[in-house]
Amino acid sequence: MTRAQLVANIFAKRSYLCVGLDTDSTKLPDHLREQPNAIFQFNKAIIDATKDHCVAYKINTAFYEAAGVKGWEAMEQTADYIPATHFKIADAKRGDIGNTASQYAKAFFETMQFDALTVAPYMGADSVRPFLEYTDKWTILLGLTSNKGAEDFELQKISRSAGGHTGATVAAVEEEFLYERVIKKGLDWGTDKNLMFVIGATQQDAIFRIRSIAPNHFFLVPGVGAQGGSLKEISQSALLPDGGLLVNASRSVIYAGEGEDFAVEAAAIAHQYAYEMDLYL
Amino acid sequence: MTRAQLVANIFAKRSYLCVGLDTDSTKLPDHLREQPNAIFQFNKAIIDATKDHCVAYKINTAFYEAAGVKGWEAMEQTADYIPATHFKIADAKRGDIGNTASQYAKAFFETMQFDALTVAPYMGADSVRPFLEYTDKWTILLGLTSNKGAEDFELQKISRSAGGHTGATVAAVEEEFLYERVIKKGLDWGTDKNLMFVIGATQQDAIFRIRSIAPNHFFLVPGVGAQGGSLKEISQSALLPDGGLLVNASRSVIYAGEGEDFAVEAAAIAHQYAYEMDLYL
Repeated sequence: MTRAQLVANIFAKRSYLCVGLDTDSTKLPDHLREQPNAIFQFNKAIIDATKDHCVAYKINTAFYEAAGVKGWEAMEQTADYIPATHFKIADAKRGDIGNTASQYAKAFFETMQFDALTVAPYMGADSVRPFLEYTDKWTILLGLTSNKGAEDFELQKISRSAGGHTGATVAAVEEEFLYERVIKKGLDWGTDKNLMFVIGATQQDAIFRIRSIAPNHFFLVPGVGAQGGSLKEISQSALLPDGGLLVNASRSVIYAGEGEDFAVEAAAIAHQYAYEMDLYL
Repeated sequence: MTRAQLVANIFAKRSYLCVGLDTDSTKLPDHLREQPNAIFQFNKAIIDATKDHCVAYKINTAFYEAAGVKGWEAMEQTADYIPATHFKIADAKRGDIGNTASQYAKAFFETMQFDALTVAPYMGADSVRPFLEYTDKWTILLGLTSNKGAEDFELQKISRSAGGHTGATVAAVEEEFLYERVIKKGLDWGTDKNLMFVIGATQQDAIFRIRSIAPNHFFLVPGVGAQGGSLKEISQSALLPDGGLLVNASRSVIYAGEGEDFAVEAAAIAHQYAYEMDLYL
């Protein structure tokens, strides 16, 4: 899906909601749990109920892998079932050396037909570029994530004058956060038509700064809902004239209800997010 | 597998070789390619032929995911087939927020019975700890990887006096590489009985420094063979009295031959590595 198509969908729906299919086989409603292929049945009902309120779905691969081969089958079925009108994200956070990254790209962009894949930056350029070679697909690079652990490395300061220090101390140097360096490197590697960044909604203090570094790129924003980030704040800080945001909600939507009407309750929450997004657009 | 068991295997075999099963369905020998379940048939032959020369197998998940559900099945079958005497590594480089990391841990430590999983550090403590909660399993954290992209972030210097700088410049500060910070944090999170580090064999200049930071931990060392690292140098720099190294070779072993005798040729290369390792132990 091109940026123009994604933007058209956002303005047609007046929503930039991404529904996260973090489908945990142990949390399915009782009436589904014993059914064959329960994970896919659950996802199908969620997709049918929420598709008018969102523009994207994000499959969190971990939940499917935990169920083994059956889970991987359910992931493939779900990816197939997501309508072509919706942006299809595999949240897999893959990252490895070039020949291995090429295999991950094949898995998610060819064997399965995702529009986008989340990618971890630690291993650098040659671990990211194989994904960007698919020019009709999107790479979504981890920038500043929503979790507390972001403090351990992402929010550490690195020197801007890189590579030249051999001693243990240096004179005064300009510094930037690791996540800023990652975003800046990403800007060199991809374009605003094939690269997005993951920016956690809980990182409100940094949003303006991040938007100034990447003024034209889409951000995929987790952390609204169960993790406590504010939809209003992230929207007011980072929306672009053409949208520029996909805000993800997983648990708060898909587990809104526990009974037979779980999909109706999921739709109600998705509708509520979309209603609020309409105000900000 | 405990450290004591792994060490006993290393000294019984006089080998610290890990054979990497990066099995690419497009590179199988002609006579296997048309067979049902060709990936597993290939792996089975490689395992049968090499098991006397190695103490570990490493499954690179990307190559299996690229083949979809059939690939995932072949991965599960292969993991089941690896003898219990051999340390079983899933090279998956997973990393995500806590509730998602727990699902990855379930996938590789419960649904499949791997001994160890490679984990990416970017997202910090809460993305790594769920793996370490399995006290009878191993987390193998990326430290300094073998690829050129290691320069982009891993080999960037970060300030040691972290968190206190709000301005753009600071006075003289002590610095360390990001990968060093990752290893030191790892030492806080796990022990030398449930945590290893990935250290690329191509990073020879840094090996002494890394060994001094983590004097008791096992390193999983890729980069020998196709990537050009030296077995001799890494062994002389980083072996411990109880071993302390698992040196991986993937392509150089499993693609040693292309014909019907591919497994025999793989065994010859594995034997050659083990012969050399015997000298260093």
